[in-house]
Amino acid sequence: MSILLKDATIVRQNSTRDIVHGDVYIEDDIITEVGTVHHEADIVIKDRLVMPGLMNMHTHLPMTLLRGYGDDLPLEEWLRTRIWPVEKKLKERHIRIGTTLAFMEMVAGGTTCAADMYFFEDVIAGVCRDVGMRCLAGFSIIDFDTPEMKREELIPACEKFIRKWQNDDLVIPVVAPHSTYSCSPETLERAAGMAKRYNTYIHTHCSETRHEVYDVLNRYGERPLAQLKKHGALTEKTMLAHCGWITKEEVRDIAGVGACVIHNPVSNMKLATGGYTPLPELFDAHASVTLGTDGAASNNTLDMFETMKFAALIHKHHRWDASIVTAQQVLDMATVNAARFLGLPVGSIEEGKKADVICLDLHAPNLLPKHNIVSHLVYAASGYNVTDVIINGKMVYHNRTFVTVDEDQVYEEVEKAKEELTGM
Amino acid sequence: MSILLKDATIVRQNSTRDIVHGDVYIEDDIITEVGTVHHEADIVIKDRLVMPGLMNMHTHLPMTLLRGYGDDLPLEEWLRTRIWPVEKKLKERHIRIGTTLAFMEMVAGGTTCAADMYFFEDVIAGVCRDVGMRCLAGFSIIDFDTPEMKREELIPACEKFIRKWQNDDLVIPVVAPHSTYSCSPETLERAAGMAKRYNTYIHTHCSETRHEVYDVLNRYGERPLAQLKKHGALTEKTMLAHCGWITKEEVRDIAGVGACVIHNPVSNMKLATGGYTPLPELFDAHASVTLGTDGAASNNTLDMFETMKFAALIHKHHRWDASIVTAQQVLDMATVNAARFLGLPVGSIEEGKKADVICLDLHAPNLLPKHNIVSHLVYAASGYNVTDVIINGKMVYHNRTFVTVDEDQVYEEVEKAKEELTGM
Repeated sequence: MSILLKDATIVRQNSTRDIVHGDVYIEDDIITEVGTVHHEADIVIKDRLVMPGLMNMHTHLPMTLLRGYGDDLPLEEWLRTRIWPVEKKLKERHIRIGTTLAFMEMVAGGTTCAADMYFFEDVIAGVCRDVGMRCLAGFSIIDFDTPEMKREELIPACEKFIRKWQNDDLVIPVVAPHSTYSCSPETLERAAGMAKRYNTYIHTHCSETRHEVYDVLNRYGERPLAQLKKHGALTEKTMLAHCGWITKEEVRDIAGVGACVIHNPVSNMKLATGGYTPLPELFDAHASVTLGTDGAASNNTLDMFETMKFAALIHKHHRWDASIVTAQQVLDMATVNAARFLGLPVGSIEEGKKADVICLDLHAPNLLPKHNIVSHLVYAASGYNVTDVIINGKMVYHNRTFVTVDEDQVYEEVEKAKEELTGM
Repeated sequence: MSILLKDATIVRQNSTRDIVHGDVYIEDDIITEVGTVHHEADIVIKDRLVMPGLMNMHTHLPMTLLRGYGDDLPLEEWLRTRIWPVEKKLKERHIRIGTTLAFMEMVAGGTTCAADMYFFEDVIAGVCRDVGMRCLAGFSIIDFDTPEMKREELIPACEKFIRKWQNDDLVIPVVAPHSTYSCSPETLERAAGMAKRYNTYIHTHCSETRHEVYDVLNRYGERPLAQLKKHGALTEKTMLAHCGWITKEEVRDIAGVGACVIHNPVSNMKLATGGYTPLPELFDAHASVTLGTDGAASNNTLDMFETMKFAALIHKHHRWDASIVTAQQVLDMATVNAARFLGLPVGSIEEGKKADVICLDLHAPNLLPKHNIVSHLVYAASGYNVTDVIINGKMVYHNRTFVTVDEDQVYEEVEKAKEELTGM
């Protein structure tokens, strides 16, 4: 199987951040040529902007089913009266359809890789493999019974999950201890130990709200990051979602260890967490900084173009400095930064890289005139502009049509799941 | 000419904010029926979400040509090194093509009415009439020579402009003294007097930046709002763009007079103005509060769906309160609030209103499941979801295709204008 992207404007995201005019050739799962290509291919796409697919580093895929179910509510009330009661009713079939809907929304918006964290993770991983989404599948570890199993079953089930998926092409199994306020020290240690044994990532929430920080401080005499560190869960493979309330010292700790921060500006703003993930300080410390949407219940989209714009603007406004976070820095967060942290050969358009590639149609009123392509991608583009999405060399969205799922059937099942879950 | 919107989900934005299932009938420029319609129409559109078109109450239409030309720069440097040098080169043909591009971007994003403020306003008004956009065309008054004429010619030219357009169906001529820092007291008085004589609106910038407030305070011993008031420019027909740095007392003054505040959250954040238009206080005082994108040079889109989301989220985050500004309040700002202030029979789907109506396709992954339609419109929808746009009863965007402009020709002329203006 080969794909030729012909006469393209290529945003390479290579080390020199070149934007060139030319062709990209994809053979099986690999980008084999970037330049001028003369040979034929099974699929040819002409005259597009070509760039690496966006990487959504923190989300809860099946929560698309709860999009708009509770808005404009204080965080605690939102969880207690809306999210938790519905989550208790979740069955495998809901997870399957919610994840499929998430996949569709993500690829239609140019996302090719998602770092998930939820219950029924084996089901989620299976859907991702079937529809063709690259996924860091985070198996949630938490000190409560989940909709799927009893709390004491979680650690062994997670281990089984890792062994099942550890050699998959698209799915990377991840250990996801939920947070320091919902996991005891012992649970953190067991989760961290397992991640170490299997040499995989740890994905956790860290300092999302001020309340959380003080709660953990009161309980353990240490802030969330120190608590993770103490119990072996802060490593060069740790993915820290949010970090809206971390200190400058914690910025240095994170950078020193080589852990990764995932900024979720839209969710933080919508839930009114008040914190500001300290991007300028994280950049100065050369920390790994990436982007996520969080779940659709608190965003309410999985749109990484939108998230890029929010990420740039929230810090400009907060610091009274329009230059504090640039378009290029934000595009890097959504592509090369994530790829580099994960050690995955994606995130740029270079020969030998895995083909996670998206195409945009630049002939659109919101992307003209072409003064500055990177600016347009961060400040002006939207999912509307994405025409084609290739993940691991496979076309999953072609001419704005889903290739691997039956759109109408999914929508029907989504509404059915909604009725089952909310009785409305 | 008649249009039937059949089997629709109708977000009426009437006084009881009903969302109903049914049909909408449009005859010539008027919504003649809402309910169950049995007769035929020239155009029939089925199975859409139908809602009033969005009203963008502050923008600079031709500045689409400068989208992405200067980003990530401090405001002063941005104006001095990027915007002003290019604006000097503006000719009528650039204004014409920039305004046409703006129209296309706006209707593709569901906007049916724009309040503009720029130079060459007669050209802008002409384009709006030709393409079919409802427009409050603000003739800029400023104490500098403009790219179009000498400063002393502005007031008489504005008067001529008002007389020419005052009875147009689509274009409402508006007097637009730029601001209290760029207009002398005498200029403000002459502009305000003219607006009063012709019983039309005054559109001005007010307290966008902290610097502006202190500049005016230093020069005149009064803040911008007091300065407007003193010189007759604060009336029940005054549109105040930004108001990011107004006081609680100024909130009361604005509400008392019945002037209208236009919140431009995206532009404020991108230019790092630091201020927060005090929406909760303005709502409490029952002030007219509306929304705008500002120009594409500082946004960088004219997307009112995006602006609605930013408007809701910036205040939640700033006040640490997810309930402080609701989706319904924001949707009202973009529709009925603007219509009510202007005294225009638009902004809702009701019999007898002018037909400024948009259709969205709800069969989209970002708008499912349908828990809460208003939430989806503010937090999840994007221009991608808009399929049809009717302005003053005329179809200007049908099945995602522009009816009144030649898309390819516009794009070609846009790139040519870009080259002429920037030499690149």
